[in-house]
Amino acid sequence: MSKGRLEAFSDAVIAILITIMVLELRVPHGADAAALRPLLPVFLTYVLSFVFLGIYWNNHHHMFQAVDRINGRILWANLHLLFWLSLVPFVTGWMGENHFAPLPTAVYGVVLLLAGVAYTILQNAIIAHHGPRSRLAEAVGEDTKGKLSVALYAAAIPLAFFREWISDAIYVFVALMWLAPDPRIESKLDGP
Amino acid sequence: MSKGRLEAFSDAVIAILITIMVLELRVPHGADAAALRPLLPVFLTYVLSFVFLGIYWNNHHHMFQAVDRINGRILWANLHLLFWLSLVPFVTGWMGENHFAPLPTAVYGVVLLLAGVAYTILQNAIIAHHGPRSRLAEAVGEDTKGKLSVALYAAAIPLAFFREWISDAIYVFVALMWLAPDPRIESKLDGP
Amino acid sequence: MSKGRLEAFSDAVIAILITIMVLELRVPHGADAAALRPLLPVFLTYVLSFVFLGIYWNNHHHMFQAVDRINGRILWANLHLLFWLSLVPFVTGWMGENHFAPLPTAVYGVVLLLAGVAYTILQNAIIAHHGPRSRLAEAVGEDTKGKLSVALYAAAIPLAFFREWISDAIYVFVALMWLAPDPRIESKLDGP
Amino acid sequence: MSKGRLEAFSDAVIAILITIMVLELRVPHGADAAALRPLLPVFLTYVLSFVFLGIYWNNHHHMFQAVDRINGRILWANLHLLFWLSLVPFVTGWMGENHFAPLPTAVYGVVLLLAGVAYTILQNAIIAHHGPRSRLAEAVGEDTKGKLSVALYAAAIPLAFFREWISDAIYVFVALMWLAPDPRIESKLDGP
Repeated sequence: MSKGRLEAFSDAVIAILITIMVLELRVPHGADAAALRPLLPVFLTYVLSFVFLGIYWNNHHHMFQAVDRINGRILWANLHLLFWLSLVPFVTGWMGENHFAPLPTAVYGVVLLLAGVAYTILQNAIIAHHGPRSRLAEAVGEDTKGKLSVALYAAAIPLAFFREWISDAIYVFVALMWLAPDPRIESKLDGP
Repeated sequence: MSKGRLEAFSDAVIAILITIMVLELRVPHGADAAALRPLLPVFLTYVLSFVFLGIYWNNHHHMFQAVDRINGRILWANLHLLFWLSLVPFVTGWMGENHFAPLPTAVYGVVLLLAGVAYTILQNAIIAHHGPRSRLAEAVGEDTKGKLSVALYAAAIPLAFFREWISDAIYVFVALMWLAPDPRIESKLDGP
Repeated sequence: MSKGRLEAFSDAVIAILITIMVLELRVPHGADAAALRPLLPVFLTYVLSFVFLGIYWNNHHHMFQAVDRINGRILWANLHLLFWLSLVPFVTGWMGENHFAPLPTAVYGVVLLLAGVAYTILQNAIIAHHGPRSRLAEAVGEDTKGKLSVALYAAAIPLAFFREWISDAIYVFVALMWLAPDPRIESKLDGP
Repeated sequence: MSKGRLEAFSDAVIAILITIMVLELRVPHGADAAALRPLLPVFLTYVLSFVFLGIYWNNHHHMFQAVDRINGRILWANLHLLFWLSLVPFVTGWMGENHFAPLPTAVYGVVLLLAGVAYTILQNAIIAHHGPRSRLAEAVGEDTKGKLSVALYAAAIPLAFFREWISDAIYVFVALMWLAPDPRIESKLDGP
């Protein structure tokens, strides 16, 4: 089985998710700065989720460059990842409209956590199909960054009920960790 | 005629359908757990429909790997399938918002039934174009799973007016039947 | 310039248009047959517009199979066609929600007419780039079907203010004309 | 790293943006000409933004024809461009619904300005990766048109608070500048 359609389908789904989020930025009725102000938290969560979906697309792109062939398990592991990503616009809108309240902030973390776990499952399914000596297996290695991200999401969820800004800071930190220039990123292939 | 654009167009349509369904999960105004509770049935139908569209994309992908060339009849049989799939977000939203009431549950089954029939028509159009000794014809064989699915949908429609949970259980059963690991699925190509 | 991305972009736009129309089928609040009844005209216009967009995609697909190379004029002629097609969901919703009232029925015809003209302009731009002896020029020939469609749309617009059902019948007739099996369609390439 | 998926992803995002804008053209309840009249400014901004996104897609298409390979920096520069373009539907709707009021007109210019800057950053990232003697570097040259566009957007922003029609005229002028036949456009590759 060739990987072309899986990539095209994933590209289309992520492209749609990254753009329908902007529909939560509802056009205000007024034409002055006061009309824009309530949109600020929605805009900030939009930026954060845009970056997260961008990171996923980026890592998906990198990972599949090392994929030679796919099977049914990889197809479903990929759909499973897309399922959790498809909830990002919903939790983004919920967190933004409620100005980073505790529960929406925690649920945002749950979706990021499950997307991260789904990415790891997909990565493992690909490695299982290509063998432990494949290019991908070597590039992933210990997958420190991926494991650290999942651990940070898991910590952010309960912390949202204590001080929600700590959770928000963790989300921003994980995003920056993946955005920061990484000398290995061109040669190694990591998960989020 | 090459199959590339037909695949790309189908991928795009199914990707859009699978993601616009999530727009039915409207962002609630409250920020507590009570605000999320009414969304539960909508979420459950979203999961079910996500899996159904995933199965269709999966099977479409498998089937077209055995396709060498297409004609006008195949193009239209494919658009016919996409038409019924395009109604999935509507019936998903209707069933979810009405908490699995009898009529929406039955109409959900009608759309699944007609999508299943459309898939069979597409499969037959491809086999007619490639010949009874083609790879696809041999892989489809008796198409037991496809026929059983259509029969189960047909049974679920009237049963929705008797006990709607039976119909819902049938939909879940058909989805699981296609999701379950199938030793033949990598070598054989079936319709839903 | 290669045609790959122009095809991919057109596929994506038409796929989105054909699916966002279904968002006009708003999920009703009631769960009985009475709740579905007001959706009937919206559903009928959805079917009609789905078929029209399907015909455009089909013809676009056929036409570009005969295209070897593109230029800036073809790119813009294609975007011009996509612009008029992008208005189809709007006029579909307007005609459906107003139960085929005269003005929406006429405006629907205006958009179909301008899309038909845009298709002809695109076809001419391609023929100008490939020469009068190209495969496409020979396949198009007199383009009787294309000219007849445009003439019928032009007639349907004023007729909508006299008897709107005549215009609706004309739209259905043009759609059937393109749907009907055409012995030349596999060998010849026509515009809508 | 191959450029195929970056192109496909960008095509999908721009295709979605260009079509979801039409959702701001809300179907009116009345069926007469009076019902259409309030939509006129929304329609005009839709046309303007459709042309701008068309220009971006066109230039992106041209530019990437000269791209041989990509790296992480190019991927992120491209996502950065898509981010600003993703705000076009929002500012289009805001400007249209407020009949070209000063602040929405200025904010429209801000998004166009930042998209123009993002395009230049992307162009520079590609040139840095391909070298100053690459085809793209030679085609871009002084990039007069790109620099002029950015300067005009920068001028239009404050002018919106003085006479908004001047800013609107500038936006139309920049669009026409890119639409006008350019003898170099087939051989040279410019940014917007």
